[in-house]
Amino acid sequence: MEQKAHSGWKHKLHEVIYEADTPAGKLFDIVLFVLIILSVILVMLESVDHIDAEHHKILLTLEWIITIFFSLEYIARIISIKKPWKYIFSFYGIIDFVSTIPLYLSYILAGSQVLLAVRAFRLLRVFRILKLVKFIGEASQLQSALKASRTKIAVFIYVVLILSVILGTLMYLIEGDEAGFTSIPTSIYWTIVTLTTVGYGDIAPQTPLGQFLATVIMVLGYGIIAVPTGIVTAEFSRGNKGEQSPGRRIHTNTQACPNCSVEGHRDNATHCYNCGHLL
Amino acid sequence: MEQKAHSGWKHKLHEVIYEADTPAGKLFDIVLFVLIILSVILVMLESVDHIDAEHHKILLTLEWIITIFFSLEYIARIISIKKPWKYIFSFYGIIDFVSTIPLYLSYILAGSQVLLAVRAFRLLRVFRILKLVKFIGEASQLQSALKASRTKIAVFIYVVLILSVILGTLMYLIEGDEAGFTSIPTSIYWTIVTLTTVGYGDIAPQTPLGQFLATVIMVLGYGIIAVPTGIVTAEFSRGNKGEQSPGRRIHTNTQACPNCSVEGHRDNATHCYNCGHLL
Amino acid sequence: MEQKAHSGWKHKLHEVIYEADTPAGKLFDIVLFVLIILSVILVMLESVDHIDAEHHKILLTLEWIITIFFSLEYIARIISIKKPWKYIFSFYGIIDFVSTIPLYLSYILAGSQVLLAVRAFRLLRVFRILKLVKFIGEASQLQSALKASRTKIAVFIYVVLILSVILGTLMYLIEGDEAGFTSIPTSIYWTIVTLTTVGYGDIAPQTPLGQFLATVIMVLGYGIIAVPTGIVTAEFSRGNKGEQSPGRRIHTNTQACPNCSVEGHRDNATHCYNCGHLL
Amino acid sequence: MEQKAHSGWKHKLHEVIYEADTPAGKLFDIVLFVLIILSVILVMLESVDHIDAEHHKILLTLEWIITIFFSLEYIARIISIKKPWKYIFSFYGIIDFVSTIPLYLSYILAGSQVLLAVRAFRLLRVFRILKLVKFIGEASQLQSALKASRTKIAVFIYVVLILSVILGTLMYLIEGDEAGFTSIPTSIYWTIVTLTTVGYGDIAPQTPLGQFLATVIMVLGYGIIAVPTGIVTAEFSRGNKGEQSPGRRIHTNTQACPNCSVEGHRDNATHCYNCGHLL
Repeated sequence: MEQKAHSGWKHKLHEVIYEADTPAGKLFDIVLFVLIILSVILVMLESVDHIDAEHHKILLTLEWIITIFFSLEYIARIISIKKPWKYIFSFYGIIDFVSTIPLYLSYILAGSQVLLAVRAFRLLRVFRILKLVKFIGEASQLQSALKASRTKIAVFIYVVLILSVILGTLMYLIEGDEAGFTSIPTSIYWTIVTLTTVGYGDIAPQTPLGQFLATVIMVLGYGIIAVPTGIVTAEFSRGNKGEQSPGRRIHTNTQACPNCSVEGHRDNATHCYNCGHLL
Repeated sequence: MEQKAHSGWKHKLHEVIYEADTPAGKLFDIVLFVLIILSVILVMLESVDHIDAEHHKILLTLEWIITIFFSLEYIARIISIKKPWKYIFSFYGIIDFVSTIPLYLSYILAGSQVLLAVRAFRLLRVFRILKLVKFIGEASQLQSALKASRTKIAVFIYVVLILSVILGTLMYLIEGDEAGFTSIPTSIYWTIVTLTTVGYGDIAPQTPLGQFLATVIMVLGYGIIAVPTGIVTAEFSRGNKGEQSPGRRIHTNTQACPNCSVEGHRDNATHCYNCGHLL
Repeated sequence: MEQKAHSGWKHKLHEVIYEADTPAGKLFDIVLFVLIILSVILVMLESVDHIDAEHHKILLTLEWIITIFFSLEYIARIISIKKPWKYIFSFYGIIDFVSTIPLYLSYILAGSQVLLAVRAFRLLRVFRILKLVKFIGEASQLQSALKASRTKIAVFIYVVLILSVILGTLMYLIEGDEAGFTSIPTSIYWTIVTLTTVGYGDIAPQTPLGQFLATVIMVLGYGIIAVPTGIVTAEFSRGNKGEQSPGRRIHTNTQACPNCSVEGHRDNATHCYNCGHLL
Repeated sequence: MEQKAHSGWKHKLHEVIYEADTPAGKLFDIVLFVLIILSVILVMLESVDHIDAEHHKILLTLEWIITIFFSLEYIARIISIKKPWKYIFSFYGIIDFVSTIPLYLSYILAGSQVLLAVRAFRLLRVFRILKLVKFIGEASQLQSALKASRTKIAVFIYVVLILSVILGTLMYLIEGDEAGFTSIPTSIYWTIVTLTTVGYGDIAPQTPLGQFLATVIMVLGYGIIAVPTGIVTAEFSRGNKGEQSPGRRIHTNTQACPNCSVEGHRDNATHCYNCGHLL
């Protein structure tokens, strides 16, 4: 049977690396989590000039250790899965690869500065390990509430963007170059800065009419923040009520199919709901 | 019968231009949508000095192509409708006209800068094409929730404005000219900047008393944002519950009456609910 | 009977000035509303130096017209009411008086600048005329929702203030004088500016530790805005449900008792609920 | 019996100091509250250079009075409780101690500036006295609503932080040193400043691409504020409905067990629910 063809140690390795319901799997996820966070902190410290100048050697050594660990982990992930190509070209497969190579590449290519900063995207890997934490139920609840209000939020952002373009153009016509409204794109940038109540102050209207329109934009922005809030809240309230209903069951099973890598199986599942493979 | 008097090709043209339930109608709307967005991007790029200097010819050529398309479309809209005057003086009729002429006018009138920026308002045309997208149901739900909380929001804005005038005057009395509070209108402008939590920082209180009052205004602004949010959210929650009730049916029919241009017909309508004309 | 003792024209005058359910009463309120708004705009324009310099005479003439109207109105209010002293020392009685005298006083006292700006508080009179507009039902609904969540909001503001003092002190210890954190009160001012997401930028942390703590304060402020919003929204939702219940009846009767000036009578009231006087 | 072993005057003292259901206990709490607020105001005033220079003597005298009162109170708290060590090493025990000693220490140690500012943390003591005010019910309701949405908020903050790191790194790569994005940590600081809509303006993007990404971050921040708000609101709404249910009873009993200091007893409790001691 197919299950047997997949040798025992590979299955074990798969369980450790891809799942989190065995002690070894949990430990692996914790170690990986810590290393990812560490590697991101390394990238940050390197970008601070005076720290990099003083401790360059230590930072590089640590980076090598992490890179080697990531390399081994990447190889292990490919070996332990049945359909390696599916993993390699999956979202997380690509991120895993990109997380691993920057240091190697920096010896081949010049201008490695940008390349090394790319390592910060290793943080994206953390989302996969989220399955470890018990927050998974809450997260999926958040997700489903946001998914349900997706179209409403899209309509809202659409209207906000059109408003920004029109108000930005108006401000460009009113204010002109002196106040910093040098072009329509800059003016739209300012409008969004104001509408979202961020308000840097690098550009600010000078004419009475411009200040009046700015005031209108602020009150508008202050008011329409109620719309996304209202949408999401209504969705959450609804979600709360239906929580016990069977249709809204939250999946807390952290297993991944060893054959096709699909996740989100029912808690009592023994076969993959996607390919029928034994879990 | 009246329907026959309206010749066949005009009816076809009407269906293509004004409606979105035939493939040709959908295609027309998509092309129009893309051209409107393109034309607005053109306006933006022209306003950036160094881009306009380098690529003036290309921008002008593209502008001519769009203007000619809009001109043809405007004529087609007038021909294909039964009561042209009603269209010409309708909201969208005027916007369509204003979207078309700026380039022509710029050859007659001097000081065309302002005139050309007016083209950005072509973006308003996009709202009509919204009927294409499937978001129409969501949008009308948003709209009805906002409409229901209209008066409450008006009362809220009214109170916020009175508060702003009174607090702005107080700040003018406390701070005076040095800190930038040069007049009561400027002071009110600052108060709204603070109350809506935008906070540019171009004007900031200097005296201890002024800073204390500023603090009060901030906490106030931070707190009263809860009011519009509460209003809209309560309305959304209510809307959610009544969603299935027949009185709150959302119209997703994109047909427009070929006789009187009215929209929002029932999904299974065969006659215009306004003038009885066949759809 | 007491009603007769109060002569007919005085009763008429009372109805016109204090109430809004006769055409004359409504007209009076509208005229008063326009004059108050006008007088506040006058104050604003006077505070703008170059406008005051150019149009001083016109502004002064208009101010005299408004002051004379307000004087006559104030006298009429005293004459037409049965218990003048009660009106004179009531909240609105004092505001009416303060709204009337600044111009007279400016001829007696020097340093009238502050005195004249006080006229902006005439705007407070507008709240009384609110009874004219049909928004009164909505306003009282807003009011009752806010009143119900009063204690919760007080607890919230209390916690926010304590947090601000403690975080402000910490920032003072971390940042010191160079970054603008010159004293603990200034530091607390900065903390509230940050916590409420206003963010002027006149003071900003410079040290890494200070920037880190600032980050924490921002995320905190970003998060706890949810609390007042949640409180008010929950209250509104509750209010919505109970809208039809008789206990939450909204008073839209704009009559005021001619004897004791109490307002808020039941819609079908014929006698004052406070003193039993005929309405 | 154990109750007798605890002598009468100690029991009285315990009731006055630790509880608030006798007149003396209430008075003590009010006096303590006023003194704490006063002592914090003293710290603030001392930090303002010109006030400290002019009134140093008065401030020092007042500080001595408060310190002596706090010293006596601290001793009384230790005497009147049965298990002093439990109090001394409790959260409030440590805060009480830290609130008392700074002035004494400033005579022993040099560099007392930092030490004296520590006195501001006396404000934390205020939270204990909260049991005096009748807001206690509301506060515990707020608390339980926040506690219920704890995990959801944690997930939310987690996602926000990861987003900040990734977007901050992107901005660092795009903008570079000139615009103020000197390192990745600074860039992340800026991203959080923008995402939370604080917007100082000390750092602002200069390149078109940077401004575009900034715009995206703002709209994102403007939108995701809906998430914590939605979570907390849904929780409050649920809390409101269950208010009458016996499982959600709010404890307004301010008594503390004289034996083990545990609080939160049922309103009609006569014995401590923790150790069985008589209340």
